[in-house]
Amino acid sequence: MKAKLTLVGAGPGDPELITLKGVKALSSADVILYDALVHPDLLEHAKPTAKKIYVGKRSGNHSYSQDEINQLIVDHALSDGHVVRLKGGDPFIFGRGKEEIEYAETFNIATEVVLGISSINLPGYYGIPLTRRGINESFWVVTATTSDGKLSKDAELVAQSSATGVFLMGLKKLKEITEVYQRHGKGNVYAAIISKGSLEDGKLLLGTVDTIYQLKQQTKVASPAIIAIGEAVGTHEYFYENIQNINEKLKVL
Amino acid sequence: MKAKLTLVGAGPGDPELITLKGVKALSSADVILYDALVHPDLLEHAKPTAKKIYVGKRSGNHSYSQDEINQLIVDHALSDGHVVRLKGGDPFIFGRGKEEIEYAETFNIATEVVLGISSINLPGYYGIPLTRRGINESFWVVTATTSDGKLSKDAELVAQSSATGVFLMGLKKLKEITEVYQRHGKGNVYAAIISKGSLEDGKLLLGTVDTIYQLKQQTKVASPAIIAIGEAVGTHEYFYENIQNINEKLKVL
Repeated sequence: MKAKLTLVGAGPGDPELITLKGVKALSSADVILYDALVHPDLLEHAKPTAKKIYVGKRSGNHSYSQDEINQLIVDHALSDGHVVRLKGGDPFIFGRGKEEIEYAETFNIATEVVLGISSINLPGYYGIPLTRRGINESFWVVTATTSDGKLSKDAELVAQSSATGVFLMGLKKLKEITEVYQRHGKGNVYAAIISKGSLEDGKLLLGTVDTIYQLKQQTKVASPAIIAIGEAVGTHEYFYENIQNINEKLKVL
Repeated sequence: MKAKLTLVGAGPGDPELITLKGVKALSSADVILYDALVHPDLLEHAKPTAKKIYVGKRSGNHSYSQDEINQLIVDHALSDGHVVRLKGGDPFIFGRGKEEIEYAETFNIATEVVLGISSINLPGYYGIPLTRRGINESFWVVTATTSDGKLSKDAELVAQSSATGVFLMGLKKLKEITEVYQRHGKGNVYAAIISKGSLEDGKLLLGTVDTIYQLKQQTKVASPAIIAIGEAVGTHEYFYENIQNINEKLKVL
């Protein structure tokens, strides 16, 4: 028996958006430690004998701390063999995968990484490119849930740039985010919220910096959600059709 | 026969980093239009009768213009049925996928998107997280090849932020990029170049803003390459081991 940890990105919701390599890792796992955002169908790739352990943590409802998860990985790798740590999205895009790898390596456990599709790819799924030739050439991705609970100071720089701002776990910070853009005279810039990613009950809200908070208050959009703000967001078909009165409109698709 | 376009992200090189959904689309395609950065093994998922057409364009060696590709998509969808447009990385992360979708839709061709893993996920593959708790909370992705051939003005803002700067198609702009960081007093910040992504001859170069250009000149790193600059890059093991004399060291892994 060889102790091994494979970090696998489960992708952004839709269970068919995992990679071939991810499925291969799941089917050879002795133990699978999986997150709240992982689709249950993915566990069907496991061997019948594999242990499947839920270690989800969601804001306001912590079930396992990061330290506890690190220790579970090590304990199971040493006692059972191949541990697959199955994480929503990509293990390294705000996934804290590096911390898990480092801890396992201090116990001389072999490690491997299987990349996954991150939620930051989801705007494309909904017809919203993060960059568009002739409009902009960059995007900026920030977690709105920083370790000190404040919105990143970098938001001030983004609001001055041509970058599409992409905010993860930002629903609770939405008002604050829009106020930063407004301070820089960008109330008319296009804004979108994508809720529940690539799942069947996924939702897209479209508006502008000035309207998106009101839209969010009027509708019941659930976490996890991703917020995208920038001129490139305005290339969504909806905006072409409604270009005359965009600031009077709110849209849920 | 139904005319249809499916945009499929092939992932960042390794042919096992395509999604289950992508494989399904490939196996039902009547025509596959594929890029230079797509691994040839992926074409083996196609039906024996499928037409496979190379439409690659690489800097300095354009074989098809975007307009020509758009037209090929439409012509084949109308004459053959299901066209899969197989693109390296993700179709919407600097992939111009939106332009292809829009053109096809003007001919009433049904469209679908299958997300792919972007090259921006590759730093994780090499043990480099783009963000790290306690260090920073964002990353900023910029294409160095803008439509007017200049480095994006956003680079000046990136260099002033705590974001990890992620520059795509930036090898030729590397000197200019490092000069921007140096102007903002960031010569000591960690820098990495990842060449050829997740392929077997992939390479990682590690240094700082002050040393990375010299390293690139001394080695033969090939495009495509991704450049990452920021404090989080310094969490790679190499830097822990060599913390004393990082500015004297150059490293190819």
